[in-house]
Amino acid sequence: MFPEPLRRVIQLLSRFPGVGEKTAQRFALYLLTEPKFAEQLSQELAHLNQKVRPCDQCGNLAEVEAHGALCRVCADPKRDRSVLCVVARIADLLAIERSGAMRGTYFVLGRLLSPLDGIGPDELPMARLLRLIEHNAAHEIILATPPSVDGEATALFLARELAARGLSVTRIASGVPHGGDLEFADQITLGRAIDGRRRVD
Amino acid sequence: MFPEPLRRVIQLLSRFPGVGEKTAQRFALYLLTEPKFAEQLSQELAHLNQKVRPCDQCGNLAEVEAHGALCRVCADPKRDRSVLCVVARIADLLAIERSGAMRGTYFVLGRLLSPLDGIGPDELPMARLLRLIEHNAAHEIILATPPSVDGEATALFLARELAARGLSVTRIASGVPHGGDLEFADQITLGRAIDGRRRVD
Repeated sequence: MFPEPLRRVIQLLSRFPGVGEKTAQRFALYLLTEPKFAEQLSQELAHLNQKVRPCDQCGNLAEVEAHGALCRVCADPKRDRSVLCVVARIADLLAIERSGAMRGTYFVLGRLLSPLDGIGPDELPMARLLRLIEHNAAHEIILATPPSVDGEATALFLARELAARGLSVTRIASGVPHGGDLEFADQITLGRAIDGRRRVD
Repeated sequence: MFPEPLRRVIQLLSRFPGVGEKTAQRFALYLLTEPKFAEQLSQELAHLNQKVRPCDQCGNLAEVEAHGALCRVCADPKRDRSVLCVVARIADLLAIERSGAMRGTYFVLGRLLSPLDGIGPDELPMARLLRLIEHNAAHEIILATPPSVDGEATALFLARELAARGLSVTRIASGVPHGGDLEFADQITLGRAIDGRRRVD
């Protein structure tokens, strides 16, 4: 159906998360109508992985030209290194940064415990995490893994491991989101909102 | 928030149809987790527009290495050149090809009449269409523009122009789609289904 070079592009584009065959075809046809766009994208992608690498300390995105082996957060001397926020993915770190609620630094696990996928405690980057905690002399570790089954299991495991080393471990709150409707909240969320209630002073 | 090289990639990716800032960010983060994928995509896009060009005759996709300046359909000697099917976009041509219902050749308009967008009859590639009709000695022209306001206006205009030149002009049927539910069909579709009724022999 499609010329061979275009078929290869469609096959590659359909590897993007959430992109199926049909969407990839639309993308590919769009690329043909915008020759300059295809050229630009090709150039930007050519050495992307040399220009943007995981931060040596936390696993966040590091721009090699700007900060060398560190990310913007780890390279910032104004950050509070006594607080370390552990997240599952880079996207979660970026979401927390956008909120502006975190003045400490981060650590990106890259994965969560998941017995079903065969990911056990040995697969977690514990050695790198402990090294960073020591390096930063962090004393509060905020566990910001998602409030899912895997995220909770990972938080529980990390809490035990870190508390055993005398660190103060906290977990982000889980409950009804801002603007959320109690009527349509699921049972687990409501249960957590009740369990996690705080005294109003 | 994002390292500069990644920000540029996100900006480019968000130009794909239907892709917003958020989706582009997900794509970009995926590219970072798959370095080989980014390299491959970069290479395939590098000269895409030299390798795949519009067919000299019909405007369909032509693979330069395989068929030179012609597309697969126009290069195929077994196609019935007496029937020419006029479509709005390459994607429509591909959809008709997939149906297997068309043994003739095609012509891709590339645009539809659209007074609101300031696209008048002068913007339609009439000269190229007439040249192809003459070249192929086509005598039936099937108008397969979409059954939308712009598509119908374009079909009406083309029908007049082509009929005035003594050509036999037909229009694809519009009605309730296969597997469609009459209860949920809109009024215009039902009206067309009734108007376009055919005798059952």
